[in-house]
Amino acid sequence: MAVPVKISGLVLNLFVLLFLVCVMNFPAISEAKIRRHKWELKYEYKSPDCFKKLVISINGRTPGPTIVAEQGDTIIVELKNSLWTENTAIHWHGIRQIETPWFDGTEGVTQCPILPGETFVYQFVVDRPGTYLYHAHYGMQREAGLYGSIRVSLPPGLSEPFAYDYDRSIILMDWYHKSAYEQAAGLSSIPFQWVGEPQSILINGKGKFNCSSLASPSLNVSTVCNATNPECTPYALTVIPGKTYRLRISSLTALSALSFQLEGHNMTVVEADGHYVEPFVVQNLFIYSGETYSVLLKADQDPSRNYWATTTVVSRKPGTPPGLAILNYYPNHPRRSPPTIPPPGPGWDHVSLRVNQSLAIKAHQGFIISPPQTTDRMIVLLNTQNRFNGFVRWSVNNVSFNLPHTPYLIALKQNLLHAFDQTPPPDGYDFKNHDIFNVSQNKNATTSNGIYRLDFNSTVDIVLQNANTMNVNNSETHPWHLHGHDFWVLGYGPGKFDIYNDPKKFNLVDPIMKNTVPVHTYGWTALRFRADNPGVWAFHCHIESHFFMGMGVVFEEGIEKVGRLPSSIMGCVHRP
Amino acid sequence: MAVPVKISGLVLNLFVLLFLVCVMNFPAISEAKIRRHKWELKYEYKSPDCFKKLVISINGRTPGPTIVAEQGDTIIVELKNSLWTENTAIHWHGIRQIETPWFDGTEGVTQCPILPGETFVYQFVVDRPGTYLYHAHYGMQREAGLYGSIRVSLPPGLSEPFAYDYDRSIILMDWYHKSAYEQAAGLSSIPFQWVGEPQSILINGKGKFNCSSLASPSLNVSTVCNATNPECTPYALTVIPGKTYRLRISSLTALSALSFQLEGHNMTVVEADGHYVEPFVVQNLFIYSGETYSVLLKADQDPSRNYWATTTVVSRKPGTPPGLAILNYYPNHPRRSPPTIPPPGPGWDHVSLRVNQSLAIKAHQGFIISPPQTTDRMIVLLNTQNRFNGFVRWSVNNVSFNLPHTPYLIALKQNLLHAFDQTPPPDGYDFKNHDIFNVSQNKNATTSNGIYRLDFNSTVDIVLQNANTMNVNNSETHPWHLHGHDFWVLGYGPGKFDIYNDPKKFNLVDPIMKNTVPVHTYGWTALRFRADNPGVWAFHCHIESHFFMGMGVVFEEGIEKVGRLPSSIMGCVHRP
Repeated sequence: MAVPVKISGLVLNLFVLLFLVCVMNFPAISEAKIRRHKWELKYEYKSPDCFKKLVISINGRTPGPTIVAEQGDTIIVELKNSLWTENTAIHWHGIRQIETPWFDGTEGVTQCPILPGETFVYQFVVDRPGTYLYHAHYGMQREAGLYGSIRVSLPPGLSEPFAYDYDRSIILMDWYHKSAYEQAAGLSSIPFQWVGEPQSILINGKGKFNCSSLASPSLNVSTVCNATNPECTPYALTVIPGKTYRLRISSLTALSALSFQLEGHNMTVVEADGHYVEPFVVQNLFIYSGETYSVLLKADQDPSRNYWATTTVVSRKPGTPPGLAILNYYPNHPRRSPPTIPPPGPGWDHVSLRVNQSLAIKAHQGFIISPPQTTDRMIVLLNTQNRFNGFVRWSVNNVSFNLPHTPYLIALKQNLLHAFDQTPPPDGYDFKNHDIFNVSQNKNATTSNGIYRLDFNSTVDIVLQNANTMNVNNSETHPWHLHGHDFWVLGYGPGKFDIYNDPKKFNLVDPIMKNTVPVHTYGWTALRFRADNPGVWAFHCHIESHFFMGMGVVFEEGIEKVGRLPSSIMGCVHRP
Repeated sequence: MAVPVKISGLVLNLFVLLFLVCVMNFPAISEAKIRRHKWELKYEYKSPDCFKKLVISINGRTPGPTIVAEQGDTIIVELKNSLWTENTAIHWHGIRQIETPWFDGTEGVTQCPILPGETFVYQFVVDRPGTYLYHAHYGMQREAGLYGSIRVSLPPGLSEPFAYDYDRSIILMDWYHKSAYEQAAGLSSIPFQWVGEPQSILINGKGKFNCSSLASPSLNVSTVCNATNPECTPYALTVIPGKTYRLRISSLTALSALSFQLEGHNMTVVEADGHYVEPFVVQNLFIYSGETYSVLLKADQDPSRNYWATTTVVSRKPGTPPGLAILNYYPNHPRRSPPTIPPPGPGWDHVSLRVNQSLAIKAHQGFIISPPQTTDRMIVLLNTQNRFNGFVRWSVNNVSFNLPHTPYLIALKQNLLHAFDQTPPPDGYDFKNHDIFNVSQNKNATTSNGIYRLDFNSTVDIVLQNANTMNVNNSETHPWHLHGHDFWVLGYGPGKFDIYNDPKKFNLVDPIMKNTVPVHTYGWTALRFRADNPGVWAFHCHIESHFFMGMGVVFEEGIEKVGRLPSSIMGCVHRP
């Protein structure tokens, strides 16, 4: 049984006042700190799901160390690239990089890659409390294990509009045994070789692959897969009976949409992507790659046993066993198996359950940031799968995106017009004739690295329009992530977005702000944001292979207001 | 039966005259051409030995296209790096890069790596006829399949001191199923994980792994290993009965020393590393990684059948089956198996056979380039295996080499003294006390990127001194390759080099010139070269994992005479 959070009106008002003090940039109550991290990236053998493979580790770990900070702090990460022949770049997911657009860490957009042997210094302010992420944003390196959490707390004396005793982070990942290189090779092949379903789900970097499935006369299985390897001991979330836990649940899956469930316990959703949510109770939390949530868990069940924490694949027919962790009631042994079988989770194809959760997420009533009530521009982005010169690609309005060699931020600041296609992609598609419910040939599909240029400080609406893939009766869920911004989620709807009537249904009252949002199968999702952060910002499907296959766009805004670029981001730009 | 090449004295003298015309740089008889190549590097799935794995291909091929040129031509390779996240650099092995030291292609020594998306233009003159190679010189990328041949012929009207009807290239490789990244991770681990013996030997890019050894209930073997894949059809060397073939045999193995044999046929060795050899006849040719030979083959056996071409591992206890190709007598079918079992090759541990071949290689009597009769400096390089901070390393005079981030050529030209250790490594070792026949702790071993600075135009002797490894009764053969030079091979000897007496036995009359030479187990090899090529040049063991583990040194000479460096090599050097 979940216990809904109850907060008196008086306390709530106090919270609102304190929050306003913060967002209005009054002098902070505690002084902002500089949090310095020294990280070294290496390829190392690890066995996160008992199967031994090469991962990219940070200081020997995957996921990497959690960055813990207070609102207003400056984070400095000195990143040493000790990969032998491979470059890198790290994106700070959910951090808007106000006044530091060059440290967004998006290779090809905001910086050149970091070479082996180089130490690159990221420096940025975490200006809002909440749950954020970091991960590689170069090729498909995120899948190789280069990811982690950022937890930004309120300064002392401030508190959230909900109460809890302890704060825990749970990061979810799906895990492939093939290397990112092997996957990329398949995706770039003719005939196309799809990456397939992941081998396991990792909860805080730990999963369990069935080693016995590898049995072979020629293979000493225990050298490549060992179920007793302590590296793949399931994660145990230890709770003290009666206490309330804030669980910061985030997902950086390569592919999978997930449902997270704590056997026998409800959860109260209180935060999404760094914004307070009007609390609502769930049995299971649906979470898409790139999203973060905080839920409250009350350890109020029979304390004589442990419970399962399960993570199951939804939205695609699962080819991956559920990820399992243990909800451990102290003082039971953390590795004591619960006496039950793990709950099966919701049906993978139960779309309406997932849409309902999307619809349930509203801004906390005490913390509404009202959106502009009108828009200056509406861009409708049709998501389609295409064949282009024999390759399978994803396209947006029939344009499959590819990254330029010279990052846009540098090209635009230095006026290198040859560095990318100066023709912007279209603001819409053939609304009248395109049938989103059927396979479409999309014969006019092209590839381009052209970008959308937004008027500075204008209000922009984006409507993500889903459609049928190249397979009959198939539409996939795509979580789209916007860099440099939070956006208001104005609405979700089924079928083809009606540009005249659907905007009338937009939620302009209490929309949640997020940085990542799903577009559901055969449906649409509408967002609004202010183009008020000078820089160049990627907006893309957060499924690693989909972005690799062209499912993304880039926005420029206020480039003339961007300060002098640091030379450290320019390593790939040729000097005269 | 082999037919020794007979050349009359008159004709020989004519050759000598023509050769002198060439080497003395008189106007060439035919005009030098520019040979332009456009190459694109990609990761692709290939099955060179029937086992499917990712390789680095050039224009879709591994080995890459053969560069064919005439002496004096200029080679231009426009190299597009389409590896997703990985840099590269290509070394032109055996090409001295006179006046173009920046295009030697040695990452960390002569250039910065080439980034993904970049097109780097190599441009150099092939100033001598002969058989050369190219391969990646970055990390362990050579093993990923980035290698090929360079064949430089004499201009029309000139001919070699031997006759043949046809000219064929055969490039030998050993092949691992693990990726270069996985191997590097093992070599860099504590505990150390050795790469082990290769899975197969490739002859012109084709080998045969035993797919049935992979049988497993969980694995659809045919998707990863398929013995009928045409990519692994054995190479067939088709010959017309009665004709004589020049076979240019080269090796770029990662690890293995090889013996190459043509069943029932002798071979006459006529060229080594681009220099004419006083012809001698062999049943099998021993060849080390980085070496090239030309042999003459007379197709003078029973033409009603085919014969085996076999390549067996020597010097290490073989864990790799022999590589097989077919010597196909036209008009038999090229895939018709010979009626015999392949010859077993020499005993892997028959060291004296191999030493005898080394001793047999002398300069062709008509083409002797006399070495300087005295030396200005002697550097003795003791080769040892060490443990350093828990890592297993190779060292030279107790210094284990590592590459700097800023290439030496740039650091030296721009006087960046902080870019590498300014202390040069020692010219010798503890001759008196070091026991080369026993395991030594080498307690004083260090790592360094310091280099040897040679007086310009001085004569330098290098003595490679082999020793026991960290295993009892074990000494390994190391092929050392010098960049930017050919050297005279002054001698080989067993045991510890006697700095006072052994030089008296040096061959100063007709030593062969080479760029790669083995140091045999527990023995020494003495070389001499003129430090007359302004630049910075690597000298290292050509075993991929050994150089990775520190088995190399670097020479600088005449840096002040090096011209203005092209900016294209400087991509990793930070601007102010």
